[in-house]
Amino acid sequence: MVYENIGIVGATGAVGSIIRQLLEERNFPYKTITFLASKRSAGTKLTFRGEEHTVVEMTPDAFNDLDLVIGSTPDETAQEFAPWAIERGCVVIDESGYWRMDKTVPLIVPEVNPEAIKDHKGLIASPNCSTTQMVVAMQPLHAAAKIRRVIVSTYQATSGAGVAGQAELTDSSRASLDGQAYDRKTFAHPIAFNLIPQIGGPKHEGYTSEEMKMVYETRKIFGDDSILVCPTCVRVPVTNCHSESILVETEKPLSAAEATQLFRDFPGITVIDDLANGQYPMPLGCTGNDDVYVGRIRKDLSCENGIAFWCVSDNLRKGAATNAVQIAELLVNSAATV
Amino acid sequence: MVYENIGIVGATGAVGSIIRQLLEERNFPYKTITFLASKRSAGTKLTFRGEEHTVVEMTPDAFNDLDLVIGSTPDETAQEFAPWAIERGCVVIDESGYWRMDKTVPLIVPEVNPEAIKDHKGLIASPNCSTTQMVVAMQPLHAAAKIRRVIVSTYQATSGAGVAGQAELTDSSRASLDGQAYDRKTFAHPIAFNLIPQIGGPKHEGYTSEEMKMVYETRKIFGDDSILVCPTCVRVPVTNCHSESILVETEKPLSAAEATQLFRDFPGITVIDDLANGQYPMPLGCTGNDDVYVGRIRKDLSCENGIAFWCVSDNLRKGAATNAVQIAELLVNSAATV
Repeated sequence: MVYENIGIVGATGAVGSIIRQLLEERNFPYKTITFLASKRSAGTKLTFRGEEHTVVEMTPDAFNDLDLVIGSTPDETAQEFAPWAIERGCVVIDESGYWRMDKTVPLIVPEVNPEAIKDHKGLIASPNCSTTQMVVAMQPLHAAAKIRRVIVSTYQATSGAGVAGQAELTDSSRASLDGQAYDRKTFAHPIAFNLIPQIGGPKHEGYTSEEMKMVYETRKIFGDDSILVCPTCVRVPVTNCHSESILVETEKPLSAAEATQLFRDFPGITVIDDLANGQYPMPLGCTGNDDVYVGRIRKDLSCENGIAFWCVSDNLRKGAATNAVQIAELLVNSAATV
Repeated sequence: MVYENIGIVGATGAVGSIIRQLLEERNFPYKTITFLASKRSAGTKLTFRGEEHTVVEMTPDAFNDLDLVIGSTPDETAQEFAPWAIERGCVVIDESGYWRMDKTVPLIVPEVNPEAIKDHKGLIASPNCSTTQMVVAMQPLHAAAKIRRVIVSTYQATSGAGVAGQAELTDSSRASLDGQAYDRKTFAHPIAFNLIPQIGGPKHEGYTSEEMKMVYETRKIFGDDSILVCPTCVRVPVTNCHSESILVETEKPLSAAEATQLFRDFPGITVIDDLANGQYPMPLGCTGNDDVYVGRIRKDLSCENGIAFWCVSDNLRKGAATNAVQIAELLVNSAATV
């Protein structure tokens, strides 16, 4: 067993707590497990597999005896702790945005580019939530018909801004219904009964950082810089699960029936698509699940080789925790088979 | 004065009440005004320009002495009353979906195709709310660079489903926050903190009736069946104002700066576009206004001749009442100049 001593960095956060739950549920193999967090959360007691654990402060020496950590922290925290871990021979699977576009760091969605894991130098990145569900949905179509262009408009939940984002939606919605003022902390504009067409700061020619992640990360994951992506990222008053209206143009034409069958046959995708009976994925129904949900699959009316569809996934799970744990499983299994 | 005796059919509805307000505000010329509604609402007292009016039941003979009516009613009501009015020499401006695609009926957005009014045979239709704001935004780019293709994903408010839709969002949001069950009446799925990627019934190859309106009506308004439109219509938990993520491909390339200037110069469009300072149109800020708001204007990253932008408009005003009143003004002015 190469990765005997594992850890979670950011164990007390929204994604960290789902990572803990997934390691339990999926019976992840390990000998010891350590929960790390910032000084502020160190000392917190957590129960894992019926045993109480005390959260340890994330210091360089905290990584001394660890073989593998999954990190879900802000970018600046990941920038700090990853080198500490790597120097001590501990492999890092990082959920943050900080290392993703580093040329030495594989960026992995196990359903799409598992082979990239062999090139890791101690650090493996997991993509941004809005990218992950999109590339999973793209993969079966790309394998069959080569995707050349993607036009995507997102409908992103407040949980993407953490526990504070979820709380702001709930609290400000109640204030709005009661006709009370609300003092915003997380979002730049009111989110209750409103839409905010900006996620992240300005990044490139009128596009936001969130939008450019969808461009750059998609190309890196597919290993194909010729894939063109035009994204629009919008925050919506939904608590959890990101939704995306996606149009792909493929080199080879696909019928809606062919695209549907490709989605159905792909592990990690669940198709819900019966418009006549009002069946399609919606955020409320997808929350708490690991799959990427696809529906409203149809031929583009504006281009011969286009397929339009609607894609929903739990951004805290497949968009974050689940993908990171799947990378850890991939790492453990590839070490076991070497 | 050709149109001395005017009326509003559906005067007590959500759009009808805004039509009344606009006729007051805009000082619409008339000698007598009559408010018509279904049997259920007949007898209701309304105040207009400081005078009390009793709502009249919509019967064939109610149109005997009217020259012009603006109707905002369900499709089946419009199907019934329009012939009664026309037979009696009363011109109808109809907000409903029933007559829009009739070949003998001009479908008008005054900023786009005012000239079509000269062909009317007693009935003029106003487009669907999601179409109207889109074609207004398209018009300056189309005039300058000819739009060949539109990809649009909508974020549509519950007011599009009338007063009942607005109430259902408010009541079900409160129930959700209180952990109470809610008995839905208007929407097929929960709308509180959720998204419903279906508006209207199945219509054409996996597209809904709402989506196909955006295809057919756009072509009819521009008088160009070669314009390709790929729409995705989604109901969002927003009370009022529809938003749209739009990508247009033009025959002639446009820079983002050129597109922005074209939008700025166009009457009926207000540009709010300063990403660095977090300024763009949002539903809460646009409600109650007549303009079509445009922001997030940028070059498509996936096609040389593409412009992406974000468009918000009050679906009860420009999407319905305002456009109908503007058509009435166009009619009155063209009669005055003949």
